[in-house]
Amino acid sequence: MKRLLLALLATGLALTGQAQVRNEIHVPDLGGYTTLKCDFHMHTVYSDGRVWPTVRVDEAWREGLDAIALTEHIEYRPHKDVTGHHGRSYEIAEEAARKSGILLIRGSEITRSMAPGHFNAIFLADCNPLDQKDWHDSFGEADKQDAFIFWNHPGWDSQQPDTTLWWDEHTEIYDNGWMDGIEVANGIDYFPEAHRWCLEKGLTMLGNSDVHNPIGMDFDFYKGEHRVMTLVLASERSLAGIREALDNRRTIVWIRDLLIGEEKWLHELFEKSVQVVDVQRGEGSCTITLQNTSDFPFHLKKTEHDKSFEYFRTYTIEPQSRHTIRVRFPKDYQGEGKINFRVTNLLVQPGQGMDYSYTF
Amino acid sequence: MKRLLLALLATGLALTGQAQVRNEIHVPDLGGYTTLKCDFHMHTVYSDGRVWPTVRVDEAWREGLDAIALTEHIEYRPHKDVTGHHGRSYEIAEEAARKSGILLIRGSEITRSMAPGHFNAIFLADCNPLDQKDWHDSFGEADKQDAFIFWNHPGWDSQQPDTTLWWDEHTEIYDNGWMDGIEVANGIDYFPEAHRWCLEKGLTMLGNSDVHNPIGMDFDFYKGEHRVMTLVLASERSLAGIREALDNRRTIVWIRDLLIGEEKWLHELFEKSVQVVDVQRGEGSCTITLQNTSDFPFHLKKTEHDKSFEYFRTYTIEPQSRHTIRVRFPKDYQGEGKINFRVTNLLVQPGQGMDYSYTF
Amino acid sequence: MKRLLLALLATGLALTGQAQVRNEIHVPDLGGYTTLKCDFHMHTVYSDGRVWPTVRVDEAWREGLDAIALTEHIEYRPHKDVTGHHGRSYEIAEEAARKSGILLIRGSEITRSMAPGHFNAIFLADCNPLDQKDWHDSFGEADKQDAFIFWNHPGWDSQQPDTTLWWDEHTEIYDNGWMDGIEVANGIDYFPEAHRWCLEKGLTMLGNSDVHNPIGMDFDFYKGEHRVMTLVLASERSLAGIREALDNRRTIVWIRDLLIGEEKWLHELFEKSVQVVDVQRGEGSCTITLQNTSDFPFHLKKTEHDKSFEYFRTYTIEPQSRHTIRVRFPKDYQGEGKINFRVTNLLVQPGQGMDYSYTF
Amino acid sequence: MKRLLLALLATGLALTGQAQVRNEIHVPDLGGYTTLKCDFHMHTVYSDGRVWPTVRVDEAWREGLDAIALTEHIEYRPHKDVTGHHGRSYEIAEEAARKSGILLIRGSEITRSMAPGHFNAIFLADCNPLDQKDWHDSFGEADKQDAFIFWNHPGWDSQQPDTTLWWDEHTEIYDNGWMDGIEVANGIDYFPEAHRWCLEKGLTMLGNSDVHNPIGMDFDFYKGEHRVMTLVLASERSLAGIREALDNRRTIVWIRDLLIGEEKWLHELFEKSVQVVDVQRGEGSCTITLQNTSDFPFHLKKTEHDKSFEYFRTYTIEPQSRHTIRVRFPKDYQGEGKINFRVTNLLVQPGQGMDYSYTF
Repeated sequence: MKRLLLALLATGLALTGQAQVRNEIHVPDLGGYTTLKCDFHMHTVYSDGRVWPTVRVDEAWREGLDAIALTEHIEYRPHKDVTGHHGRSYEIAEEAARKSGILLIRGSEITRSMAPGHFNAIFLADCNPLDQKDWHDSFGEADKQDAFIFWNHPGWDSQQPDTTLWWDEHTEIYDNGWMDGIEVANGIDYFPEAHRWCLEKGLTMLGNSDVHNPIGMDFDFYKGEHRVMTLVLASERSLAGIREALDNRRTIVWIRDLLIGEEKWLHELFEKSVQVVDVQRGEGSCTITLQNTSDFPFHLKKTEHDKSFEYFRTYTIEPQSRHTIRVRFPKDYQGEGKINFRVTNLLVQPGQGMDYSYTF
Repeated sequence: MKRLLLALLATGLALTGQAQVRNEIHVPDLGGYTTLKCDFHMHTVYSDGRVWPTVRVDEAWREGLDAIALTEHIEYRPHKDVTGHHGRSYEIAEEAARKSGILLIRGSEITRSMAPGHFNAIFLADCNPLDQKDWHDSFGEADKQDAFIFWNHPGWDSQQPDTTLWWDEHTEIYDNGWMDGIEVANGIDYFPEAHRWCLEKGLTMLGNSDVHNPIGMDFDFYKGEHRVMTLVLASERSLAGIREALDNRRTIVWIRDLLIGEEKWLHELFEKSVQVVDVQRGEGSCTITLQNTSDFPFHLKKTEHDKSFEYFRTYTIEPQSRHTIRVRFPKDYQGEGKINFRVTNLLVQPGQGMDYSYTF
Repeated sequence: MKRLLLALLATGLALTGQAQVRNEIHVPDLGGYTTLKCDFHMHTVYSDGRVWPTVRVDEAWREGLDAIALTEHIEYRPHKDVTGHHGRSYEIAEEAARKSGILLIRGSEITRSMAPGHFNAIFLADCNPLDQKDWHDSFGEADKQDAFIFWNHPGWDSQQPDTTLWWDEHTEIYDNGWMDGIEVANGIDYFPEAHRWCLEKGLTMLGNSDVHNPIGMDFDFYKGEHRVMTLVLASERSLAGIREALDNRRTIVWIRDLLIGEEKWLHELFEKSVQVVDVQRGEGSCTITLQNTSDFPFHLKKTEHDKSFEYFRTYTIEPQSRHTIRVRFPKDYQGEGKINFRVTNLLVQPGQGMDYSYTF
Repeated sequence: MKRLLLALLATGLALTGQAQVRNEIHVPDLGGYTTLKCDFHMHTVYSDGRVWPTVRVDEAWREGLDAIALTEHIEYRPHKDVTGHHGRSYEIAEEAARKSGILLIRGSEITRSMAPGHFNAIFLADCNPLDQKDWHDSFGEADKQDAFIFWNHPGWDSQQPDTTLWWDEHTEIYDNGWMDGIEVANGIDYFPEAHRWCLEKGLTMLGNSDVHNPIGMDFDFYKGEHRVMTLVLASERSLAGIREALDNRRTIVWIRDLLIGEEKWLHELFEKSVQVVDVQRGEGSCTITLQNTSDFPFHLKKTEHDKSFEYFRTYTIEPQSRHTIRVRFPKDYQGEGKINFRVTNLLVQPGQGMDYSYTF
């Protein structure tokens, strides 16, 4: 009976155990920081989610995450039988998190109609004061606790049916210092407008699952699917380390094949992920062998280049794989060779990939 | 955002949808009855499970089941924040079940130390009267409601550490007419002693998941794993149909590769699952082509046979597959050919397979 | 020992069998025709492939195909130990194809540098006459045998490093009546230019795997991947039926999520794949339940629409799944409702999806 | 186009690459030796296999193997078009093996009716002299070259229809010093009699795939299946290292869940695979947390034990997973605790598991 864990009341202690398999995520450390895998937005039965809080910890451990926040809706708790204050899911998950080494962050979701829509406040000391009639008071309470506050799914079609708009209320929130970041990705959606706003306004980019179901209902992990997550470049693996990195905008968002972040991080991520393990240059051609040691694919597309050099038009470097690429050039060519391409899934601007050159 | 379903309070209705994929289970109808796939034992947050009741309905639909019972522990509800009477999980799941066509059976688990241990009462009208100090009274109330009552996981090592024993209390329960069946399989365990008791005492054989986690944590469906279930040979796809079949012991238990039941049903199941699609008999050999249209594998092991006939020692007919088997015999052999084998995973007695012969 | 098949020389006949599992592809029949799944381009050890010809038949059967052509390079046979004339791989695969019901088409690949590059000639009576010094003679011989001839991978970067060009030689071939179709997809590549040429010049669109490896090395079938294929709308499941359909350009190309073909076929394919199983129209909103019974996903993207109607921005209908979509409109709206969207993966023009409206 | 590798003759060099993913096998080093993963028995188109020789190298690399031997049948080469001497498949695979770091061993399969049946001779200098009319001469030639010779699939039902017998010819071969080992596992079969003979006669135990198909047709790797292999405890990762280890019988055979070998190796393998990471002993119970860092599962079954200690009846430690096991004992118990069990899939004798005790 795998079900177990079941500490049986009337019958004494259970004797049985439970297997858990952790799948580590392979991503390089960058800039001298540790790359932590984080998801700052999810729900349990304590708001409108469909799992017990400890399930979120087990899911995170299995998927190789470092940190999570349970962010129940303050204003929306449809499961009337589930009682308890706004911070209960955190309390219930705490021991499981400690045992499995998952960093658990206390948070809540301020849940309003548009505008301003939904916002997460994380690194709270107490969730309950956020339960206010007027949203200004909710934000004010979060701010009082020095929470990290971000706008959730700004392009969600239920609240922004056709266009991802910035409303006056967002200006007000921003001007009050109540907006530290925005979700540029949520669930299965990437929001290019939010990406632009983060770059323009100096806001932290976040990507979170917003999962409500048992996560295995939403992702087919055996197909290589992964939940949306925020890669945090932290000076240490701790709550303080994560907070400092968020405050200083050292994040990369990972959704499907896309990695969204500042060019300097994506550039380093690409070079640390894909090592050149062998170069064989001969007369008229060069063979380059690459090893991708990360869990990310990279989609390359040839850009403007010396026409006497012939190489792929498009090329995909799959995760955890070895590749051999060949470049042809005139037989009498003696100088330095160069190929140019764009890595189309490393987004340094809204919807736009990162340019790269390789010289041999 | 796959999470959805999320009916948003403050923001009006959600616009978003949700994908659900149902994997039908391929099993033949037998004896003129419809073969229903049922799981009569599982938990939610309303006892010590870790999912919301509607999750159990969605899981059942995805896995191709026909009927389920949520059987919360009467005496063990460790999640103190989750309030509501003993029948609440049924009430909450009811609409989801109706919408997806899953037959939902009202039940409870009487949860006592050994003896008598744990029993499920299903087809209850009201779960609450089972909440009694003395277990006799719980059984009495279930009986008053004409429930179908069965002994759960009789060989569970937490309650029967070394041997699967029948206690005096079980005799008392049986004599009172309070035991209609026994789980011969639960979770990942098959109990041969329970199998024997069912045969000897005319009790219904049941196999149930007893799932507490989101089920995807316990089974790797992409590997072809399936939850333990009871195949019910019902005169119609309805609650009444299931009840009548259970009362008349028309069940087959499916756990891992094992199918456990009466020989007449397993014999028919084998013949309807594995069709002979071609026989080529030549001089000295015969080639038999089989098509298994069911989701069951069949493990064959040669038994006593005419030594002049040469064929496999062991052979596995995998699910949903086509096979060619060859038999050799003396070149001048003219009579009817016969091969004998045991189907080792069709258990007609405790731990013992079903003998079969094929003639050509 | 699964290895089997092994007909043992010195020891007499093998007794052992082999399991084969066929995964049927679910695609609707269209326009009164039968939709056949075909791959007209692949290689074995008889040219530069790496499998024995019968492997291609087994792979096709397992993947649910109806017809294949082994198209060895006439001019490139690097495996010097493998002797035999140009039609040998067809001869060797013939019996396996007959036994498993795979339609086997005799073909060859005319393999030249650009221009004109590589062309397949299928429905040949004899491959050997195509072995000519001058490519005009190869085409002439194929034409003499009334072969169906098509241009392979016109945008292959080895032969067209930067741009997919139409050369003078292609005009010559086309004018001679030697070009019946073009591969608009090959392996992992879709060629929009070829798509346009087919539409402009009335050529048949083809999509083929061009597989050289054991196919399991190139596709992860458990992830839902599939080989590129040509869906042929045939009046009957026969070689003649396929030929007639190819001659009359009744094909749809399937590569990754993309379906490429004439709008009338894609329109019918969408409507037959996605059934509306329930519509609940209430005050201010309508709930539409869909069932996709095909193996194709459909990616929807909202287009120009009545702004008082709110519905998804983008939506994916996954294969073999059930969906519920909600549309909101003003509470007092009484008239006919309509939502407009583009199915972005049904390509009716190069790189352009199919527009669709749904009225309720 | 994934097909590639395709070095194009007429058209110049290919520009395209190919992705390869290697899945490392996690197995501990034992006794100061390096544990190498080896398969000494497989076929290509050069005998009755269905792939080109280089495919075997790529398959081995992908599956995480260290060494392979291509062992074509000397006496059975049904593909008449495939010419070349008996050592050709080795020569063809050599460069691919060198490039990917797979150790390639020259070998052949002596293929006779029973008795003596089939034998592999590996570490040959030249395969051709083994082509002899009388099997004695084949063995003699192999012996002259100082080959390592072993009996293949001794219980194969095609040659030993009902019982795995040792024939007079095997005594003769053994007495001549022509039998260095036996396959105790081949394909999907384990042969307990062969296991016993190896123990009694001091022969090396081997387990090999004997694969004829593209290996992806025989194993579902995504389900966690693996080919049968011989784990070789070598003093270095080299041909010489493997040979020395085989000569000194330092092997463990891995088939399905079973590991077959000498108790001292299996004992160390178990202890190095399953680490106790935490022990919490309290009043009346002890909680033991285990981490299995290997790719092997371990199936435990309780054996004779102090009845006042209560723990699992059976328990499976899954690969790469973490487990918590609880033991109960009398509250006033002060002394050393001990649990006894058998690891049923570590076979130290034919069909018999390894006994183990854990003390806390």
